Amino acid sequence: MRAVDIIEKKRDGKILSDEEIKFLLKNYLKGSIPDYQISAFLMAVYFKGMSDEELKSFTTEMINSGDIIDFKGTHKFLVDKHSTGGVGDKTTIALAPVLGALGMGTAKLSGKGLGHTGGTIDKFESIKGFKFSETREELIKLVNETGIGIMGYSDKIVPMDKKLYSLRDVTGTVSSIPLIASSIMSKKLAVHADAIILDVKVGSGAFMKTFEEAKKLAETMYKLGKLFHRNIVCMLSNMDEPLGYAVGNSLEVIEAIETLKGRGPKKFQDLIVKLSAQALKMKGDVKTLEEGIIIVEEVISSGRALTNLKKFIQASGGNPEICEDYSLLEVAKEVTPYLATEDGYISHIAADEIGRAAMMLGAGRATKDDIIDHSVGLVMKAKIGSYVKKGDTVLNFYHKGNLTENIVEVVKSALKYSKEKVQEKEIILEIIGG
Amino acid sequence: MRAVDIIEKKRDGKILSDEEIKFLLKNYLKGSIPDYQISAFLMAVYFKGMSDEELKSFTTEMINSGDIIDFKGTHKFLVDKHSTGGVGDKTTIALAPVLGALGMGTAKLSGKGLGHTGGTIDKFESIKGFKFSETREELIKLVNETGIGIMGYSDKIVPMDKKLYSLRDVTGTVSSIPLIASSIMSKKLAVHADAIILDVKVGSGAFMKTFEEAKKLAETMYKLGKLFHRNIVCMLSNMDEPLGYAVGNSLEVIEAIETLKGRGPKKFQDLIVKLSAQALKMKGDVKTLEEGIIIVEEVISSGRALTNLKKFIQASGGNPEICEDYSLLEVAKEVTPYLATEDGYISHIAADEIGRAAMMLGAGRATKDDIIDHSVGLVMKAKIGSYVKKGDTVLNFYHKGNLTENIVEVVKSALKYSKEKVQEKEIILEIIGG
Repeated sequence: MRAVDIIEKKRDGKILSDEEIKFLLKNYLKGSIPDYQISAFLMAVYFKGMSDEELKSFTTEMINSGDIIDFKGTHKFLVDKHSTGGVGDKTTIALAPVLGALGMGTAKLSGKGLGHTGGTIDKFESIKGFKFSETREELIKLVNETGIGIMGYSDKIVPMDKKLYSLRDVTGTVSSIPLIASSIMSKKLAVHADAIILDVKVGSGAFMKTFEEAKKLAETMYKLGKLFHRNIVCMLSNMDEPLGYAVGNSLEVIEAIETLKGRGPKKFQDLIVKLSAQALKMKGDVKTLEEGIIIVEEVISSGRALTNLKKFIQASGGNPEICEDYSLLEVAKEVTPYLATEDGYISHIAADEIGRAAMMLGAGRATKDDIIDHSVGLVMKAKIGSYVKKGDTVLNFYHKGNLTENIVEVVKSALKYSKEKVQEKEIILEIIGG
Repeated sequence: MRAVDIIEKKRDGKILSDEEIKFLLKNYLKGSIPDYQISAFLMAVYFKGMSDEELKSFTTEMINSGDIIDFKGTHKFLVDKHSTGGVGDKTTIALAPVLGALGMGTAKLSGKGLGHTGGTIDKFESIKGFKFSETREELIKLVNETGIGIMGYSDKIVPMDKKLYSLRDVTGTVSSIPLIASSIMSKKLAVHADAIILDVKVGSGAFMKTFEEAKKLAETMYKLGKLFHRNIVCMLSNMDEPLGYAVGNSLEVIEAIETLKGRGPKKFQDLIVKLSAQALKMKGDVKTLEEGIIIVEEVISSGRALTNLKKFIQASGGNPEICEDYSLLEVAKEVTPYLATEDGYISHIAADEIGRAAMMLGAGRATKDDIIDHSVGLVMKAKIGSYVKKGDTVLNFYHKGNLTENIVEVVKSALKYSKEKVQEKEIILEIIGG
């Protein structure tokens, strides 16, 4: 078998055998097939795609490149909720305590990503003293007590993904549906959760800009999950504007806590409730989403979800009092409003640009060596559909005196106004397999 | 500027600027852009092609990567005839003496290639004592005396092509029309000839198997020539069967000499006459191909072309007597016929397989370290359209006792017979720009 023949076969749109895919990936990992052959292969995949069987073989090899994570020692129904990422995405911070209060567990690997703000781990770390479980024992203990099992990615989980992603990143082969799907799903499948809920974000603040491509990705991942006999659901959710109001680490923690108090942004609250109800349905506790919603709303309104989060923070070394006294969180003292430049309905918010403004304030990492400032960010005061008058506050910057003209310009260019009333979109656009 | 942005632009079918192409190739040559980015780029080019302007920029960078060859010191009208290669291609050996006898010069770089037989240089070297010009002075002297200027490729001419080709060879990006065109044309354009005649072979014995793809390549190269303001013609010629009868180094030299005596295989003779007439037309000596053909036929029948070849052989250290006494050439003594296995018209000769049989006998190099045996090969006795009876000789093997069952099988599988009369194809299928 020769790599060049496999590349040509894919280039010509023929279906590769399991042996051929194994040969390619195994030898790439060993170093006996060089980067330049794999990058040509990946570009051929970009143009020709992969069949279901190819995708299964490819993903299997990715999973087999590293360790499998089980959560032995806990008997909870474990849910792995994963979002494809967006601006202001604090879903896990609110969702995990709810699932825990419902008697389920979250089994989640989380990264310290690059982007507009930090990842879930960074956001939790904006709580002083907070430390994630570093041993398996600590983690299982925490899952049994609170249902919240979040751990950082280790290099031992799907190391092939890291190697492939670094290559894709510099060779124009990131935005290929089968490659994205296998990258995400290999990491989901390497963890033994009882249910996988994928939240594929679509819109200006998401990696997938159009509904069509997001749906294609969601369907591909759903299919992959089913090929591996997993209990899986894929949601498509709107990311045409930031999720909720807050973008920034401490600011998002506050918004997640507010949501557990029933005072979160309407659409974000809706997302948390529906995701949780979906988990109940997958567990088999309820037959319909509507039944689940009633149970979830109760677990929030009764305060049980919030209590669960406090327990988790305490067990992780943080002060649970932050949930009642936000001044215990580090939030930048300088608050500068951004004012509407005309009268009208907000018709467009380029969420990725809003995220970029937050990153420029220091909320996110541009390169992996950057240090995050947990205290800075911004909070939207108007969203798509809001009517504003010239001079009204559209958002507040939370900064440390570093609010440059440049950052203001980024926000300005992200906003569009309309004289006509603007229709808001639902947060959940579609559910596949629900 | 970043390589990844250029790759993505090409991937998305957008047109690259001259600066972008320069950036990519210059930095690749310098080593600051790695193979894995270029291989992804090449695969994107495979799928998306190149515009005329892109191709011009790309080819310009290839040419500029090395030396430019002029033939200063000669005032002849210089013709660079190049064929895309095939089985039994001894065109240059017969054509260059004819052009010389017509008062023109041949300006040609030739390689010691891999393949069924050696390249033009290997074929000439089957004449004992023959040595190619090693200095510029010798070469120019020879061009002025005989019109025949053939020199080996040096690494200093389009070094980018070698680098790119090695990468294409292992990444499934060889068979891309713009990449093939720029590879061939950069080497033509790096030589200052007055006329370029490209002979694009099409058929089972050629790199281009179908007329459509061969025509596309010919048109692309013609266009490139015009973009560089060159006097250029592209011919498409048939390679559904070996060119002429002989495949092997000494054997092909004999056939080329026979052609200069007017006794060559009909179609090969036709090709030489028409190529030469085309050169006369490009020089402006004649207005039509027909006029040129009359002049060329005279230069052959008068023996002036053969005399010119003898002069060239003598000046190159060989014995010109070989032209009259073929026993002075080294030809394998063992001659074994291959016999027709049924009655019928020969309907198909897989020329590449015939070539492979010759290579297996030792006539060509499989790897660049192989040593060629100039004496071995085969001579066809029947061609497409010939009627044979079972047991008739289809070809003779010239070998040194190494005619294996395997080689016979290769020839057997290359031949098809038909009960119906088979139409022969013209040798020249089309002339572009003639």
